[in-house]
Amino acid sequence: MKVQIIGIGLIGGSFALDIKSAFPEAEIFGSDADEKNLKKAQELGIIDHPAKIEDVEHADVVLIAVPVDVANKVVADVLDLVNENTLVFDAGSTKSRLCKEIANHKNRRNFLAAHPIAGTEFSGPEAAISNLYRDKTNIICEVEKTAFKLQERALDIFQKLGMRIRYMDPVSHDRHIAYVSHLSHISSFMLGKTVLEKERNERDIFDLAGSGFASTVRLAKSSPAMWSPIFRENKENVLETLTEYINNLTHFKDLLENDDFQEVYNEMQRTNHIKSILNGIN
Amino acid sequence: MKVQIIGIGLIGGSFALDIKSAFPEAEIFGSDADEKNLKKAQELGIIDHPAKIEDVEHADVVLIAVPVDVANKVVADVLDLVNENTLVFDAGSTKSRLCKEIANHKNRRNFLAAHPIAGTEFSGPEAAISNLYRDKTNIICEVEKTAFKLQERALDIFQKLGMRIRYMDPVSHDRHIAYVSHLSHISSFMLGKTVLEKERNERDIFDLAGSGFASTVRLAKSSPAMWSPIFRENKENVLETLTEYINNLTHFKDLLENDDFQEVYNEMQRTNHIKSILNGIN
Repeated sequence: MKVQIIGIGLIGGSFALDIKSAFPEAEIFGSDADEKNLKKAQELGIIDHPAKIEDVEHADVVLIAVPVDVANKVVADVLDLVNENTLVFDAGSTKSRLCKEIANHKNRRNFLAAHPIAGTEFSGPEAAISNLYRDKTNIICEVEKTAFKLQERALDIFQKLGMRIRYMDPVSHDRHIAYVSHLSHISSFMLGKTVLEKERNERDIFDLAGSGFASTVRLAKSSPAMWSPIFRENKENVLETLTEYINNLTHFKDLLENDDFQEVYNEMQRTNHIKSILNGIN
Repeated sequence: MKVQIIGIGLIGGSFALDIKSAFPEAEIFGSDADEKNLKKAQELGIIDHPAKIEDVEHADVVLIAVPVDVANKVVADVLDLVNENTLVFDAGSTKSRLCKEIANHKNRRNFLAAHPIAGTEFSGPEAAISNLYRDKTNIICEVEKTAFKLQERALDIFQKLGMRIRYMDPVSHDRHIAYVSHLSHISSFMLGKTVLEKERNERDIFDLAGSGFASTVRLAKSSPAMWSPIFRENKENVLETLTEYINNLTHFKDLLENDDFQEVYNEMQRTNHIKSILNGIN
């Protein structure tokens, strides 16, 4: 099985490691817009051979793991080149525009739109790790538009990597994911900003930070090159969640200002049952 | 050594476990406003004997680990009763008002104002764990107001539990901690609220949540009974941080609305160096 991975960073690199381990006979080809990344991936043994995009015509499986603003074009370019037996899937955090833009591509049936809910706050091939996808959810959009035998091949890979599959339409996907992923990143980046602005004047502040702070700002380590395009692609949904979040914070602030600490307590109490929902997410 | 712990939840219970292990000859007495907690702590072997507040007159060490709104009164009540060789220390997240209120107490020199930066999102004696304080920072305020030999006894305990000590005045403590702890909790609770409100209509949303979401909302599991008093005690500082946070979020939202994605990128890029600062916090 020839597998070509376009974009050999955290996501693509981790797929490479797990596919190699689940399919020992697989040959892994890697492409990356950044020559340094490609070289690093080779040095680390993440890929077997560097490759050009044009080489996808010889691939059995192509994974596209590039920032979402370029993914739309890369998916279309790759579909232009593939043979009828090539499975192409992506791993992007937004799905609506991509699915729309390739809807009428002559090779639409070669493509499977996927979003594995997995990652860390790190990026690049050095960040690739084994078993990143084990027990994680993989959301698949518009599965009915993918050729049946290629669906099967994709599911075989996803299952061997230990993923749970969920099917969803791209519009619902983008709305949901704005709440449970995109908003968390903004919340974290702005929390980091708020504290860093303070820290300019007060050097000692981080000595006081504990695990709670580290947990809430962890995502502020994420790659701007990955996240800025996600916010652009999913702008309307992100604005909706962000507006609701700001409104909730402003309401909480009003309660503090008015010394309504009973309601401050109630606000937290009502959110506390998130405990039971979060069990099982790690 | 007779050690009496008043408030035998996560913080007090974890101190009990570590003190017992560092000082095997210590006898641990526990008091709690909630009879169930006290019974549970006994069943779990966290304390050796239940005790009444009045029993502090026989104690060598008294730890007060109760919500900050009652801590002020409990500390004063305990200081009324202690003998001149009793060390009393607290573990509260706010320090200014407490230090002010007991400033003129006749037994002020028996008291050491402390804030160990340690905890989890859980509460109650069942949440007590060993080594909670190892490698954590313990902030001590107004150390010069504590009798020298009692400072020594306190430092001996803190060092045996593996804590790093930092000295700070109570006003600075409360301002700093609003940024690196209290704001994180509000951010997390309101993030949880924003998503839960959505979830009422859309049951499936949490199937899509990954580790990033879990990390940012983890603190929304925290105890409202502990946190509502902290926000009241530290209201002015918390309002300042919360206002800055809301302003930063609103600015980010404006950038999205104006399609200024270069600046969205820059905002994240400027915050990214929090990576290096967070190294070492866990």
